[in-house]
Formats: sequence, structure tokens, C-alpha cells
Amino acid sequence: MIKIGEVGWVEKEVPACGPLDAICKPLAIAICTSDVHTVWEGAVGERHNMILGHECCAEVVEVGSLVKDFKPGDRVLVPAITPDWNSLEAQAGYSMHSGGMLAGWKFSNFKDGVFSEYFHVNDADGNLALLPPNISVENACMLSDMVPTGFHGAELADVQYGDEVLVIGIGPVGLMSVAGASLRGASRIIAVGTRPKCIEAAKKYGADEFISYKNGSIEDQVMAMTNGKGVDKVIIAGGDVNTFESAVKALKPGGNIGSVNYLGSGTYVNIPRVEWGVGMGHKTINGGLMPGGRLRMEKLGSLVSSGKLDVSHLVSHVFEGWDNVPVALQLMKDKPADLIKPVVKFAD
Amino acid sequence: MIKIGEVGWVEKEVPACGPLDAICKPLAIAICTSDVHTVWEGAVGERHNMILGHECCAEVVEVGSLVKDFKPGDRVLVPAITPDWNSLEAQAGYSMHSGGMLAGWKFSNFKDGVFSEYFHVNDADGNLALLPPNISVENACMLSDMVPTGFHGAELADVQYGDEVLVIGIGPVGLMSVAGASLRGASRIIAVGTRPKCIEAAKKYGADEFISYKNGSIEDQVMAMTNGKGVDKVIIAGGDVNTFESAVKALKPGGNIGSVNYLGSGTYVNIPRVEWGVGMGHKTINGGLMPGGRLRMEKLGSLVSSGKLDVSHLVSHVFEGWDNVPVALQLMKDKPADLIKPVVKFAD
Amino acid sequence: MIKIGEVGWVEKEVPACGPLDAICKPLAIAICTSDVHTVWEGAVGERHNMILGHECCAEVVEVGSLVKDFKPGDRVLVPAITPDWNSLEAQAGYSMHSGGMLAGWKFSNFKDGVFSEYFHVNDADGNLALLPPNISVENACMLSDMVPTGFHGAELADVQYGDEVLVIGIGPVGLMSVAGASLRGASRIIAVGTRPKCIEAAKKYGADEFISYKNGSIEDQVMAMTNGKGVDKVIIAGGDVNTFESAVKALKPGGNIGSVNYLGSGTYVNIPRVEWGVGMGHKTINGGLMPGGRLRMEKLGSLVSSGKLDVSHLVSHVFEGWDNVPVALQLMKDKPADLIKPVVKFAD
Amino acid sequence: MIKIGEVGWVEKEVPACGPLDAICKPLAIAICTSDVHTVWEGAVGERHNMILGHECCAEVVEVGSLVKDFKPGDRVLVPAITPDWNSLEAQAGYSMHSGGMLAGWKFSNFKDGVFSEYFHVNDADGNLALLPPNISVENACMLSDMVPTGFHGAELADVQYGDEVLVIGIGPVGLMSVAGASLRGASRIIAVGTRPKCIEAAKKYGADEFISYKNGSIEDQVMAMTNGKGVDKVIIAGGDVNTFESAVKALKPGGNIGSVNYLGSGTYVNIPRVEWGVGMGHKTINGGLMPGGRLRMEKLGSLVSSGKLDVSHLVSHVFEGWDNVPVALQLMKDKPADLIKPVVKFAD
Repeated sequence: MIKIGEVGWVEKEVPACGPLDAICKPLAIAICTSDVHTVWEGAVGERHNMILGHECCAEVVEVGSLVKDFKPGDRVLVPAITPDWNSLEAQAGYSMHSGGMLAGWKFSNFKDGVFSEYFHVNDADGNLALLPPNISVENACMLSDMVPTGFHGAELADVQYGDEVLVIGIGPVGLMSVAGASLRGASRIIAVGTRPKCIEAAKKYGADEFISYKNGSIEDQVMAMTNGKGVDKVIIAGGDVNTFESAVKALKPGGNIGSVNYLGSGTYVNIPRVEWGVGMGHKTINGGLMPGGRLRMEKLGSLVSSGKLDVSHLVSHVFEGWDNVPVALQLMKDKPADLIKPVVKFAD
Repeated sequence: MIKIGEVGWVEKEVPACGPLDAICKPLAIAICTSDVHTVWEGAVGERHNMILGHECCAEVVEVGSLVKDFKPGDRVLVPAITPDWNSLEAQAGYSMHSGGMLAGWKFSNFKDGVFSEYFHVNDADGNLALLPPNISVENACMLSDMVPTGFHGAELADVQYGDEVLVIGIGPVGLMSVAGASLRGASRIIAVGTRPKCIEAAKKYGADEFISYKNGSIEDQVMAMTNGKGVDKVIIAGGDVNTFESAVKALKPGGNIGSVNYLGSGTYVNIPRVEWGVGMGHKTINGGLMPGGRLRMEKLGSLVSSGKLDVSHLVSHVFEGWDNVPVALQLMKDKPADLIKPVVKFAD
Repeated sequence: MIKIGEVGWVEKEVPACGPLDAICKPLAIAICTSDVHTVWEGAVGERHNMILGHECCAEVVEVGSLVKDFKPGDRVLVPAITPDWNSLEAQAGYSMHSGGMLAGWKFSNFKDGVFSEYFHVNDADGNLALLPPNISVENACMLSDMVPTGFHGAELADVQYGDEVLVIGIGPVGLMSVAGASLRGASRIIAVGTRPKCIEAAKKYGADEFISYKNGSIEDQVMAMTNGKGVDKVIIAGGDVNTFESAVKALKPGGNIGSVNYLGSGTYVNIPRVEWGVGMGHKTINGGLMPGGRLRMEKLGSLVSSGKLDVSHLVSHVFEGWDNVPVALQLMKDKPADLIKPVVKFAD
Repeated sequence: MIKIGEVGWVEKEVPACGPLDAICKPLAIAICTSDVHTVWEGAVGERHNMILGHECCAEVVEVGSLVKDFKPGDRVLVPAITPDWNSLEAQAGYSMHSGGMLAGWKFSNFKDGVFSEYFHVNDADGNLALLPPNISVENACMLSDMVPTGFHGAELADVQYGDEVLVIGIGPVGLMSVAGASLRGASRIIAVGTRPKCIEAAKKYGADEFISYKNGSIEDQVMAMTNGKGVDKVIIAGGDVNTFESAVKALKPGGNIGSVNYLGSGTYVNIPRVEWGVGMGHKTINGGLMPGGRLRMEKLGSLVSSGKLDVSHLVSHVFEGWDNVPVALQLMKDKPADLIKPVVKFAD
């Protein structure tokens, strides 16, 4: 990213490696919609000559003197969120906000990202995880952001055995929210989305029924499908600030909304007063950035390596070599019908 | 209540007592702001010849054939919320929404209230509690709604040891939120309110510092008092739909808002997008009706009877006899400077 | 059950139906190991002429005057545990202990069980659930006890995404604990058991690896399989009071043990002091009776009717007609190699 | 500590300060019973020439190059437990077990303790907290271990509003468990202990009634005091492995036991099978080492500096100067009747 609206290659020094840190080179990278937001919508504000990217797997090339568990040559999972683990926020259980709200998100936000020959990882022992040998480099990229973000939606919504769950959005994050809801025991998953490629993938991840924005409001359709009762839980993985109105209206009292959607514009998130129980309906509204770090990578990686979670349905396009990074980025911007996630490989 | 805007006495039959139920007569009643809302603002919609009131303690005069634990002559605590305990909502942990959102609230909502010579209690074994002998009848009225509602705010906000807590509103509910935050280990309680009588009581309940709406926005004052960090938790016990904007802005990431405020008007509760972490700040928004029923009455009653909680600071005016009910109601409507809660006694 | 050690048919009056109750006739029944314990080991103490059984689905034949949601002819799921929902224990979230420890368990404990032409259900609205039409009567019997008990083990152990879970015991309850751990996102399930029929079923429910008691202690084998780290969670669904020693030793600090095993003998459950962190290892020990009631039946029933959970692997033997009840009971006592659960059908 | 059974002064090098670390000198130290256990009972095994002590407040004399928030001259609170915050265990929420069970406890366990002219603190930013100016150095020592350990008992027991709580042991930790239970809203605290000095302090911290071991079993006395119902929660802050039997017997189904007692001997902690509900009584057994680190120190320190918690009742003896350290240690070993905690000051 040269500036808002313009991308290109920048020549930079190899970053310095502090005593706790690691320098890595990517084995494969994935493009995220937020890379597109960052460049063409200026979502995180103006940035000059900042390297993009926060989804990849990588090989360690250098480690700091205090790093104990990794060494050059190790192949690693790299989370999009790399907290400062000794911060007060991390001690309070919110490592993704270490140092300030959302400040656990460093790649292509506060520092250069991973679309680079070499990139820097803070606190290598706390944030990297060994790449299980049976996970391909393209699948491994799904563990940086898509899996932990989507699954966090199911955690924030607190899905329980037998719940009816509404998942709004079936892009790659929404698909992982569907998978996450399935893997917490939902009995019925109603997904909102229309793209055939995504619907097909959503079914594989456990979605039972689909709602289209085109057939009326989400809440009206949900109410019709649930005998006027609403669903137990809602996961928001798409839409905008107005989506919360539908979510509250489609939800039972005592239910939870878990949102993992980045809200790029709008002054307010609007909660409808009456359907929110005039303030007293126990419809809890949670929204949160994914937890990152090593343990999370190991846990979610184990679901993939054990075969309990197949992330390959997310990877719709695979390219090879640095020359194809702009191609993949453009593809993400254009969003053709058959796109879910584009990956660019540099190794096997 | 004759209709919206008009109150008076209505002659009615003594209600019938089903097999699980009890008929009671009040020992003392308290007037609630929501009685005023119901009559003069039509908060629950039009009602004709509905008896008002949901705060009292009482004497049992009749019990149904299946009632095991109460008998005529027992003096009892009566919660404002009297759930149907076998409902699906109660089984899910949300008894206050038994049968539908907020439907655990029956008195002066779906059926006649307690400002009546005789009133009806559904599921006596599940909803009444013996009045501990060392609690006065006027103090006992505070256990119907003020204590459980205020304390629920501290529960929804999930106050923990050493938290800095903002309590918005220091009417009787807010005062009990202050007490509830103290009794969950808050180290610093910042309360929002200006009435001297309430400030005096709030100090007794554990408030450390006070903010006035008149000195600028709540959030600006909180930020100035917390070195720009915000508070750990916010309890909303006053204000309106706009109050949530200040609450979100005054709160740290990872914090909780617990609201127990009835929101009488406005289309939306407005959550500020940016300060809510563009949807990902882990600032959880909870709003809920108080839990009622027998166990809750016993638990909170035990705090009063043991002397750990002194509710007498809430009872600012005590009247005697039915003739004074309209006087007390008018007082609640007029809100003189020295008013917190008016009680009318019919016995000792 | 005539007395301890003796079974036979007893002629009894059709039970009376109170205002909240229902009288039902079984559509199918399943035999539980605890029926065997009750008769031949006197597990709940001496009982005379008590009708056995707590697993069935049924048809409603009569309802009390206050029952709102069920009527004669309805086909219903019947939980083994039928709480008194207005009890203090249920209000505290422990409905299975309503009226006293374990006292939510009424069938063939405090009153006649379901192996009877007609049986009595307390609080029909609170405890029955409609039988989804696409669940067969034999599969429906698995929802009375096996599914809720097994799944409660996974809840008590608090299984989370990516956890390594040890399930001790792969009888029908253990199999459902395996399924429950899978449906809460375990990435690796190590099951303890040797019967080939059960191992085959356990694999279908998500078990990845197996341990045999015959190859050394459970803890030694677990440690060898986890590089000396132990598992994140342990579910106990078999064994005896000594099993907890292995469970504690095989568990990481910060992990949970969820036990749903009935402990029939022994004075003490022995927790090994050193491996329990000299009292400070945060290895939480939970043991609990399954939650029953209507909501639970509806939730777990929805997992079966939606196809997310296939209970048919549990039903190893199906008989027809009352004459075969003693045959099935004897089979359960004898435990042939290919037995998991015997069911007797009286209708389709 | 020279070896087991022998104490004396050892001359050592000033410890080296790594990039994240700090070197501190004590302002005051407190003696802990576990120091006595370590020396005279060999509780943590043999140690040679290991410096004792883990309770103190201190002045920073040197910080590592990566330390951001502390500088030489800062006066600090020092927790007994100083985790490695980037460890997997800390990321899982169990920082006290960072690197292995109990391995967050480093002082006088894995490395030299704080009874030394200079001592070493790992991860200064993550583990130290500024000493609030209005807390005296002797009171500050109570925040290293007594307050966080005692309060953790109330957290593990999950004390809620109106609970009846049994606290077993009223030594300094037990007194803080009493205070912690009070500050989470217990309505009735029954404490077990006989020393008049401790009973006097326990009353100040909120204990309502007392039980003596000398008057029969704890469980019999509790049952007599609770109409045979038992208490809602039990905190174990004294006794030995046998204490759990009383705790389980005195507890209601659905209740929790929170233990913070170091169990120095015995092969097993004995859980009585029958009163534990034959394994199904939902009497949860938790035991855990205190959480340490900076946030905890700040939170608990704020309770002291705000005046919500007065720790001065714990400090029964104050000495001055290094020469008095052996005197204070001997006092702790001898436990005279009026002893709660001895402190040795080196500054004001």
C-alpha cells in the first residue's frame, strides 16, 4: 500500500529482531477483505508505504535471544492478532486489546504486514505455533484470521447444545461461524446469504436453511421459520451497523448476539428499543475482535490437523509466486461469483 | 388506575385462588416510578380499572390446595416479578421472561396489582418468601423491586474485586446498584446524580465520587477522572436511550454495561460505532428485568435481616392507611427534593 | 421389582392424575444399567413392589386440569429426571436436586417407574416434550437418560474448541459423552474401553484413540500419548471411586473433570494430593446428575431430529411387547459382548 | 535457609537483571507459614542456601532494557506469584501454572526469595504494581499473598449475594477469605476457628458466627445451624486433606468448595461418596493457587487504598531492621496466641 487507493511494491530493510521476537518469511499468504478496506476505503486511516497483509503461514528465519520454543527453519502458523501478553488487558482476559482497544492487531495496522519477503513477529514464544505437518500451506492461512474470527462469533453468541442459531453473512468468516456453531452443538443453523458458491460451502459446514435479503427482512423470515419465537442465538458475520436491528428482532429474550463484523461506517449501531425489551429483555450484545496468540493457533490448528474441521472449502483460488499477489488482491476487490478466499503460495 | 391519566378507587371481587396460588393482603406498599409511568405516560399501554402497584409485603389470607410452604397468617415478602417456574424461559434461566419477554412481570401489567385490600399471587411456593421478623414492613417493601433491580445491575455489569464502576442514576434503583456494586467488591464507585438527598444516601451505600450532568458529558468527566482509561464496568439505572452512548464511551474495552433502566421512549438505543471498537471492542451490553421469585427474595432478604444491607436510607416518607395511597402516589409524581421512596403502612 | 434380587409383574391401580400432571402409557422402553443395580445390588435401598424403569417415550392418556400444552394422544419424550420446577433448588439452577439432593429423580426411585402400562408424570407442562415425528420410538428412548447424561459430562468438563478430552467408559453413557465432546469442539478424544462393539460405536461418535485398562494405568497411557502434558478435560462415564485418581493424574492444571458416573460403593472418592497440585492445581472436580425437564428434552431432541446426532448406534437390541421386558432386563444383567442398549417397543 | 531445618544468612551476588526484569530491594517483608513449612518441614523439598520469602513491598533499583513502566526508585507491590505471561498456561487463564503446575510461584521455590538485600523479579511490567502512596509498607506486604490467596478462595467458591458461607480456618488467609466473602455479598459467614485474636479480627472482616473443632465435627455444627440444609458455599483456608470431608458434608447440592489451603501431607484428599451425591450431587471441588501479576496487585491494592479493605488487622507484630528477620521467623514458627502476621520494616 503506497497510500489510500494505491498499491505497489515497496523496498524496505529487513526488520530488526528484538530479544523476544522472530523474523519470518511467508510460505503462503491469503488476502482479506479488510486489506481491500484498508487500501481502497481507508478503513484504518491513511498509511504511507505500509506493507499489507495479516493472513499467512511462514518459516522462521531469525529469533531473538530470549526465544525458547522456536528456531530458524520452523514452519509456523501466524495469527492475525499478536498480543503483548504481559499487558494489563491480556491479564484481564482481553489480549486482543493489549495496549488499547484493538491494539493486539498490529500487522498492516501499526506496523508492516505479512505480504513481504520478511516480516516481524512480536513475542514469538507467545504468538507463533508450529504448523502441523499434515496441514497444507494454503489451508494454514485460514487459521490466521478466518477460523479464529468465525469461531469467536460462536463463542460470543454462546452457542449451546440444541440451539437454533442465525448466522448473518456467509463470506469466509460467516462460513467459519457456521462451522463454529456446528462444533458447539447447534441443532439448527439458519444462514443469511445468496451467493451459490457460499451456500454450497455453508451446507458443508452445517447450515440447514438459508435466508435471502431479497425476500424481505431477516427478522420477518426468521419469525416465519420459528413460529414467531425467534432464534436462541445470533452470530453477525456480515452486514453493517443496521444489521443489529434485525439481529435483536430475530432473537429470543435471554439470547445472545455475537458479532465479529468490522463496522466500517455509520455513527451508531441501532438497537431497537421495543424489541430489546424496553431495555430489559436480556438480549446480550457482544462484539469482539478475535483472540490471537499461540494457544489459540494450537487449539484451532488441532481441529484442522485432526480432520474435525476442513478449511479447504474456503480456499477458492490458489496462485503461486509474488507476482500474483497483486492479481489476488485485485480479485478480492472485484469479488467474482466463485470467490471465497484467494491464496498465494511461495512454497509447499 | 381508571385509565391513562386518571386514578381512583375501584371496587372489585376478591380474586379467586387457584390450587398453586395465594391471596394476600398488604402490610405495607411502596410507590414505584413505574406506577407513575403507567398511569400518566401510558408506559404499558392503556389499561382500564387496573389496580396499580407491585411493591409490598403482605399477610397470606388464603392458599390453594397444592401450596405446601405457606399458610394463612404468614407474613411474606412479595417480589414484583412472579414467574411461571415450569416455563421454558425459566428452565433456560430467564424466569422473568416466563411466557414471553418481560411476562414474569404480572402485577399491574397483566393483572391487578398490590394496591388493593386483597391481591393474588401465582405459584405461592415458588414466589413468596417468609418475612424475617427483624425486617420492618416499610423496609420489606424495598425488597420487592428496588433491591433486586438495583443489584441485578451489578450482576449484569459483572462487577469484580477492585473494579472501577460507573453508576448512572442515583434514584432508589441506582442507590441499590451502588450498594450492589459495593457488595461485589468494587474499589471505586463513581455515581452520576445531583439531588443532595440521593448523594447523601449514595455515600452511605459506597459511592466514592459524583458526577453531575450539568458539568459536561458523563464520558468526558469519567475520562478526566480515570486518566483517559475509562471505567471497568457501567451500571445504568437512570437516563434514557441516549445514556448508552455515554456508557459505551466511558467504558474500557473488555468491560460490561449492565442496564436495569426502563426505556420508555425513543426508537433506538444508540451505540456509538467508533467507541464500541468498530464492533469489536468487547464492550458487552446487557439489559435485563430483575429476577424475581422466592429464592431471590430469601437471598436478598437475608442480606437485610443480617444487617449487611440497610435499606432504610431508601424510605424517605412513611404514611399510614389506605387514604394516604393517593397522597403517596401524587408525591411520587411530584418528586420533591427530599423524596426517595414513599411507603404506606397498614400494619406493623 | 418385588424386592432386592427379585423381579416380576405387579398389578397396581392406574395412578391418580393431579392438576399439573399427566398419565402416560409407554410406546417403547429402554433398560438402564441402573435398573439392574436397583434390583440386584439394592443401589437405592430396599424397595417393595416398585415398578422399575426411567427410560421411555410415551403417549399421553390423561392430563390434569392445569396442563396447558399437552393433551391425550400426544406422543412425548419423557426425561428420566422430572423436577419440581418451582423448588428453591430449581430456581438456583439445579433442578435435578429439587427437594433435596438427587430428588429430581423420581421414577423407580421415589415412585413407580415407566415399565408399566400406565405411569404418572409430575408437572407435565414442565417435564414432557413432544416427540418429533421423525424420531423412531426406539431412538426416542435414548433421550430419556443416555443422551442428557452423556452430554452433561461434556458440559461439566467444559469442553472447548480444540481440547484434548479423555472419556473414561464407553458404555452407552460414555458413547454419548464422546458425542457430546465432539459436539462441543474437542479436537482429540481418547476413550477408555475394550469392547469391540462399543469401540466401533465410539469411533462413529468421534473418538480418535482408545486406551485399554489392560495395558497399564490410564494415566500412564495418557501421559505417553500427550508428551507428558496430560489432557485438557476428563469425562468420567464409567469405573468407580478409584477412577478419579487416574482422572486427576491424567489432567492438566486448569482442567476440569466432569463425572456423570453413579458411584455405587466405596467410602471415599480418592483425590491424589500431589497430582492435585497439593490442593492448588486448579483441577476442578465436578460430578452431577443429568438435567431433565422439558426444555432439555426439546433441545436434545432437536439434535436428533435434525440429524446432527444419530442415536441409533446405541440401540443394539430391539424387542416387542411386554412379555419381552424380562428378557431385555436379563440381557442387561448378563451384558453379552454385542450389547449396548436393549429396547422394548409397544408401538411404532 | 541453609538446608531443611536450618536457617542463617547467606552472602550472594546481586542477581543479574534480564531485559524484561527488575532488581528490587525490600521496604518491608512479611513471614508466611509456608516459609516455616519450607524450612522445617521441607515442604517444597530440599533446598540449599536458598533465600526465603515471598511477601514484601519493595523499591526498584534496576530495570531491564525492555521494561517500560517502572524505573529505579519506584516503590512497588510485589506479588508472591510472578507468572510468565506469554506461556500457554497464562493464555489459558491459569497464569499461576505458567510453565507447569504451580510454576508461577518462583520466589523461594525455584529461585531466591525476597528476604534479601536485593531480589530479582521476572517480567517487571507484567508483575509489579506501583505502591499507592497511602498504603503503609507493612500493610502493603499483606497484598503479596494473604489478600490474593484469601480472596481467591471466595472466587473459587463463587460466593453470590445472600449466600451462607462456611470459612474453614481463620489464620491470615482465612481472615482474607472472610473479607473476600463479605465483599462478594455473603449474608452469613460461619467461620471455623478458636484463637481469640483471630475471632476478633474475623468479626471485623464480616464473620457472623463461629464454630470450634472442639465442639464436634464441623458438619454436625453447620447442619445444626442451618436447619439441616447446609451452607451454599465453603471456603477452605486451613486444615488438611481430611477437611474436605467436612466441607462436602456441610455443603448443599449445587454448592462449591473453594480451597486455597496448601496440603502438606497425606496421600489422598478424601471426598465422602454418599454425601457427594454418589458422584452426582453437583458439589464442585475447586482448589487453586492465587493469581498473581500486576493487574491483580493493582485491583486488590485499590481496595486497600480506597479504604474498602483494611488489612491492618492482619499485622499483629511489626519489627524493624534485618536483624529482626530471624526473630520474626521464629515467632511464626512458635505461633504465640496473639500472632497473626509478623512484618519486618526496612523503611517507611
